[in-house]
Amino acid sequence: MSNDIGLYGLAVMGQNFALNMADHGFKVAVCNRSPSKVDTTVERAKKEGNLPITGYKDPEEFVKSLSKPRKIVILVQAGKPVDSTIETLSQFMEEGDVIIDGGNEWFPNSIRRGEDLEKKGILFIGMGISGGEEGARNGPSLMPGGQKEAYDLIEPILMKCAAQVDGEACTGYCGPIGAGNYVKMVHNGIEYGDMQLISEVYDILKNICGMSNTEMADLFDEWNKGELESYLIEITAKVLRKADDQGKEGEVVDYILDKTGMKGTGRWTVQEAAEQSVAAPTIAAALDARYLSGRKREREDAEQILEGPKDKPNVDKNQVIKDLQEALYCSKIVSYAQGLSIIKAASDKHGWNVDLALCARMWRGGCIIRARLLKGISDAVAKDDELKNLMVDAGFAEELNSRQMAWRRIVTLGISHGISVPSTSASLGYYDQYRRSRLPANLVQAQRDFFGGHTYERTDMEGTFHTLWDASHKDIGDLTGRTAGEL
Amino acid sequence: MSNDIGLYGLAVMGQNFALNMADHGFKVAVCNRSPSKVDTTVERAKKEGNLPITGYKDPEEFVKSLSKPRKIVILVQAGKPVDSTIETLSQFMEEGDVIIDGGNEWFPNSIRRGEDLEKKGILFIGMGISGGEEGARNGPSLMPGGQKEAYDLIEPILMKCAAQVDGEACTGYCGPIGAGNYVKMVHNGIEYGDMQLISEVYDILKNICGMSNTEMADLFDEWNKGELESYLIEITAKVLRKADDQGKEGEVVDYILDKTGMKGTGRWTVQEAAEQSVAAPTIAAALDARYLSGRKREREDAEQILEGPKDKPNVDKNQVIKDLQEALYCSKIVSYAQGLSIIKAASDKHGWNVDLALCARMWRGGCIIRARLLKGISDAVAKDDELKNLMVDAGFAEELNSRQMAWRRIVTLGISHGISVPSTSASLGYYDQYRRSRLPANLVQAQRDFFGGHTYERTDMEGTFHTLWDASHKDIGDLTGRTAGEL
Repeated sequence: MSNDIGLYGLAVMGQNFALNMADHGFKVAVCNRSPSKVDTTVERAKKEGNLPITGYKDPEEFVKSLSKPRKIVILVQAGKPVDSTIETLSQFMEEGDVIIDGGNEWFPNSIRRGEDLEKKGILFIGMGISGGEEGARNGPSLMPGGQKEAYDLIEPILMKCAAQVDGEACTGYCGPIGAGNYVKMVHNGIEYGDMQLISEVYDILKNICGMSNTEMADLFDEWNKGELESYLIEITAKVLRKADDQGKEGEVVDYILDKTGMKGTGRWTVQEAAEQSVAAPTIAAALDARYLSGRKREREDAEQILEGPKDKPNVDKNQVIKDLQEALYCSKIVSYAQGLSIIKAASDKHGWNVDLALCARMWRGGCIIRARLLKGISDAVAKDDELKNLMVDAGFAEELNSRQMAWRRIVTLGISHGISVPSTSASLGYYDQYRRSRLPANLVQAQRDFFGGHTYERTDMEGTFHTLWDASHKDIGDLTGRTAGEL
Repeated sequence: MSNDIGLYGLAVMGQNFALNMADHGFKVAVCNRSPSKVDTTVERAKKEGNLPITGYKDPEEFVKSLSKPRKIVILVQAGKPVDSTIETLSQFMEEGDVIIDGGNEWFPNSIRRGEDLEKKGILFIGMGISGGEEGARNGPSLMPGGQKEAYDLIEPILMKCAAQVDGEACTGYCGPIGAGNYVKMVHNGIEYGDMQLISEVYDILKNICGMSNTEMADLFDEWNKGELESYLIEITAKVLRKADDQGKEGEVVDYILDKTGMKGTGRWTVQEAAEQSVAAPTIAAALDARYLSGRKREREDAEQILEGPKDKPNVDKNQVIKDLQEALYCSKIVSYAQGLSIIKAASDKHGWNVDLALCARMWRGGCIIRARLLKGISDAVAKDDELKNLMVDAGFAEELNSRQMAWRRIVTLGISHGISVPSTSASLGYYDQYRRSRLPANLVQAQRDFFGGHTYERTDMEGTFHTLWDASHKDIGDLTGRTAGEL
């Protein structure tokens, strides 16, 4: 008996992904540290249609049951559990076999593991998986990065198990080890941005327009038929409509504490953006909003102390709704532009050669950020290799230009009511900075030269300059070969 | 012959700091990798008043010339040069001697070095120095972190050489190794914020109010007599007044390229804020503005493609000037609040016990961010150990409350003219989020529970909850012991 692929780590994600692969006709071996989950998985395989899954409680038997070159997906908690799982399994594996880690791993960890395994001739893939438990079972977005020969070995399986949109599988070769984790990390950063943007819309609809949960749910359902169509808009409507399940009146959303949890990927995205010298203020504002949400007690105290506007302007509810739709659409474009810029910068730095159009294509289905918009993004990026920023694609530029006044009205409305819309506002700020040929950075550069002799460039002549700003300044000598700043 | 202290690394900062110490009567030994700078320094010591500086070209002689326990300040480039300098010097040093690294070092590097040196019994201090070349010579802000006994050995020297404000030295014990570098790093992050905030004011004065450089310089001079009094406001006036020095008409600031350079500390501050789960959007927006300034070519192209508002509202120049002053003051308070929150979080995490009032006190003189405002900050923090955020101190709260409408008018003005004021806007957003007891994070938490089973807390009952949002959801089992999210 020889299995096509192994899956180690049978929490719900692992179980579901094993069932998904088996559903597509692959013979799947499963194994887990605590053996009871092996039985659970095998039982589910029987119940869900006699799927070809075989359970193993001994790792050696598990590995040896696989046809060569062996392919094993591991789905355990990121970090140390991945290391110990690799140690357990690799001792029974041989040159040319492949380990695929499907966790949300910090990409340098994957690179380190790949290097260690390479010494034994074992191939390694760090593969981001998005779509939650539901996606894992029925078709997730799969973002693999590893040796190309390792990818080729598993491609036939990934192509079948991934979500399918318009006949295309939501997967593809992201690049060398680390690239897949990176693309998934940025996916999650964009997810943070999308969720925050939607919550800002909700905040205005509820607290400025005075709409009920049901009215808002109807609106999100309506929006989900148009250019904003996406998984997150769809579930927002469902969330807002859900009656309380603890016996209270009204909808459950009103009883949920406004303190947001998080795992590491949003944080990493913001840290990596800074590392790559890329501005990603939409995503950063979403992360900050989560941090500030966590300071619930402090906010309760501050509300008694710090004031907002007393006279709030009247609003034309229908106009606000129309403006919100356009503002959200603009902010989303900007947020995706930031995410793709982060990937591009990292790809250039590490020599990964990540295909940005593929990223957008992989995200069209299966994952949390799936959205109609991604088709246009993928097309825009695919048709122009040299596109510097998504916003300047002719199609998106036209959409932004025709909507920018609505966007301004929304941010202004929030400010006048004391309702902060940090990600929407940061998105507009990014737009307004990016589209200005002359920013006030000349003053900053002058200050730096004043207090630190950091030198500067000029607009009207080549070279590096230093000014003797006042009597305290001395000539700092020959500037030949010095560059003004590091950017 | 025995010297009181050694200084290794004689670039301008090092020379100046040696002269500063000698000025206060300490006998200083100096040494440098390339020996010509030793002569330069000794010559300067003669010229600037026969100061007690002795030059050494041999590191061993240099070290051995010092009275025990030996104290050596090193001022070389951060990173590898520090490691090799420590290697060179420490071989001649003995148990109980102290090395003080005065560079802008990434704090984990100092911790690592301290651990290595501890094995040999050598003490180590990572000391941030702010004030540029001028400060190093005449009195910088000194932020030392290391073993308390090491600090005690150098305290008499630091107290004399640091800037003095109202009879207090701008230095003090920051905490264990790493704490001093950290405080300096955040100082630099705040500096990024201050500079960006001033450049946003400049942008509005110039491009919305149509003011000339001289008019603006007069205004900054005026502001420098009031609550905004600070080194950066002072030099901004000087910068704006400076005639071009390359033979062109008008002021040099107009010819400076709007591309901002940077070193690492601003980036680190933003990455560390994320690491510590602290929102620091004012500082992050300043960093992003530097990144976007660097994309000059892209911005030039984008200006041809992306549109801003066509009809811009008329402005009442005097009102705008008055509002700008208040908006800048509010944004500064908020920015300092963020900086102190970052230090507090790191101090709690690492057990450093950093005194935040001391930080503000050390920053009152010598350094780039010195400002009248810091007296109030220091007092506010000193009088309330439990102060959760600078903004809710009664005095600052009153100032914010009376100015918040001006702040809103400025951000709104910028938006209506297409002039992004990202740090001012992010500061207001921070204020508006922090002062609301209920944020829309409940919706985000609901979405997370919908797609990932992440669970949530409720406002009306204790415990952890999961909702079966629709038919796709299954019971995820017993939630006892699970916590909703990680915050």
